[in-house]
Amino acid sequence: MAERAHALSTVDGYSGYGAEQGEKKLRAAIAATYYADLGIDETDIFVSDGAKCDISRLQVQNASSLPLVYCSCYIVAHNFYASKFQAYVDSSVIMGQTDLYQQDVQKYGNIEYMRCSPENGFFPDLSKVPRTDIIFFCSPNNPTGAAASRDQLTRLVKFAKDNGSIIVYDSAYAMYISDDSPKSIFEIPGAKEVALETASFSKYAGFTGVRLGWTVVPKELLFSDGHPVAKDFNRIVCTSFNGASTISQAGGLGCLSPEGLKAMQDVVGFYKENTKIIVDTFESLGFNVYGAKNAPYVWVHFSGRNSWDVFAEILEKANVVTTPGSGFGPGGEGFVRVSAFGHRENIIEAARRLKQLYK
Amino acid sequence: MAERAHALSTVDGYSGYGAEQGEKKLRAAIAATYYADLGIDETDIFVSDGAKCDISRLQVQNASSLPLVYCSCYIVAHNFYASKFQAYVDSSVIMGQTDLYQQDVQKYGNIEYMRCSPENGFFPDLSKVPRTDIIFFCSPNNPTGAAASRDQLTRLVKFAKDNGSIIVYDSAYAMYISDDSPKSIFEIPGAKEVALETASFSKYAGFTGVRLGWTVVPKELLFSDGHPVAKDFNRIVCTSFNGASTISQAGGLGCLSPEGLKAMQDVVGFYKENTKIIVDTFESLGFNVYGAKNAPYVWVHFSGRNSWDVFAEILEKANVVTTPGSGFGPGGEGFVRVSAFGHRENIIEAARRLKQLYK
Repeated sequence: MAERAHALSTVDGYSGYGAEQGEKKLRAAIAATYYADLGIDETDIFVSDGAKCDISRLQVQNASSLPLVYCSCYIVAHNFYASKFQAYVDSSVIMGQTDLYQQDVQKYGNIEYMRCSPENGFFPDLSKVPRTDIIFFCSPNNPTGAAASRDQLTRLVKFAKDNGSIIVYDSAYAMYISDDSPKSIFEIPGAKEVALETASFSKYAGFTGVRLGWTVVPKELLFSDGHPVAKDFNRIVCTSFNGASTISQAGGLGCLSPEGLKAMQDVVGFYKENTKIIVDTFESLGFNVYGAKNAPYVWVHFSGRNSWDVFAEILEKANVVTTPGSGFGPGGEGFVRVSAFGHRENIIEAARRLKQLYK
Repeated sequence: MAERAHALSTVDGYSGYGAEQGEKKLRAAIAATYYADLGIDETDIFVSDGAKCDISRLQVQNASSLPLVYCSCYIVAHNFYASKFQAYVDSSVIMGQTDLYQQDVQKYGNIEYMRCSPENGFFPDLSKVPRTDIIFFCSPNNPTGAAASRDQLTRLVKFAKDNGSIIVYDSAYAMYISDDSPKSIFEIPGAKEVALETASFSKYAGFTGVRLGWTVVPKELLFSDGHPVAKDFNRIVCTSFNGASTISQAGGLGCLSPEGLKAMQDVVGFYKENTKIIVDTFESLGFNVYGAKNAPYVWVHFSGRNSWDVFAEILEKANVVTTPGSGFGPGGEGFVRVSAFGHRENIIEAARRLKQLYK
């Protein structure tokens, strides 16, 4: 990125507006690195300034009431424990796709909140889910850390196909998967006809401030009248976005070089070691712990307690910051999310203090 | 930018998610540089990844049908000769704020196209403009190159105030102003109550691919029920955007340093010299030429001719690319836009060929 930035000051290295969809070379590298055997090619990849921004652009697509966008979605399905909860729900709310907030049940109307808990293997009972136009699904999941299995995703794809729904699959943590859970929804046969996938360099290369991600919109994904979703998404990208910063895109190319891939694996491996320290800590204290194996998040159950009370207790008594589970929605009550993103010495110190607090 | 990018690889220099509204230091520098005496402070500045993207985010704000966003705009006023024509009109179309395209008049329903031509001093006859919720106004204008005078803008602000309209003022070319035309709508008394302003580093520092701009939303700007526009815009920025790349923001800080300001003035000065060469060329050939003085665009009248025919003629016979005026809308018919953004030797060579073609 430093090289690209410096090159902008030279006649040969200067570049102006890039392609809204991203640099061809980067789109090709993403397709080759993550989707080589899945029938996704570079023209299916839209480079973005991050998954959150793309999710909001997808909402623009849904909001249209004009025939050029063929999806008239006013019901948004929602994986209850979702990362980017704010982007999923609030962007729907702002775009006027939901009904008003219902104080009694603490949710917005016209959104189905699909509860995912230890009892159901962090996967909703699809027989109880009504038909919806859009299904947001994040795996590995933030905050629960659960990665959906091949069998679960196969059922999800079938459900979407049977109901004419489109899955917005958020795979921002896919590189953290250690077992044989799919790293992309497109590993599931038939998924290209019902799903698009958002991803990001944020959690692999520390690019949260650099702003770089991508969305895969397969050519096979069609609205019910046969119009390709990719064609409309392309129009939105070209109208509402001028592409990610060319400097950030140079960073993406660096990430996908052999040296960069190795560095990202090292970073992911480092945080997975942190995760193990956190898991061992809470398990040694007798807590039920979920997630962690396929994600940088540990989902700790404080049975019968209020999430915010636990959060406050840990903050005030151990000076350690966690995230109250109920902050992600009512189904998170009784849990806190513990993040593995930190310096090793801080993780070790936090573990020490937690052991002191709950010994 | 190279320094900031490199610093990300160090423990001390690394930074993650920044503030969605932009770095405090950059917001303060923008306020101090461009709005020092205009009562705009850093909290009114929202740093963005470019004016086009912010204009689409503003459309999100308008699209809402929920009470949290109080503006129920379904009529969008439009300065006919507008830069970012696509962002203005197409984002409205995609968001479903317009009626269908009307083939006979070549425009979308529910948008007022305000014709600006040499006959009206490139400023619409406001007595013929109906009341609208939003007025997009770009000055200095792309493609005509016309900068609205203080008197014209005073009338525009009064019109907005009388009609309860909000002006979205696009000042992306303000640094090209040579005469005493206002460089910001906020130079006009009362504008803070009826206008917000988008701006960009793209045309001052060649940042088109770097992606950096800003929007000024004054605290005084309220919806008709008294709710501050800035409060809603802030929510949209936080929900649909995670801030401009921190590397690009370092570039913005560089631009606003004494050395950077001098460099931007040099760049603008260079293109203004190009503009003069283009103007002299067409005037020597007897054409009526507009714009140019306060903008990097020359608006050349080919009386009685079709814009696309002239464009094709210049392209095929002189191998020079211009932009057909009618591409900006039906009122541009008979004009071509000639851009001054180019290497000096190319401008001189283009001038030579044009003289040969039209001698």
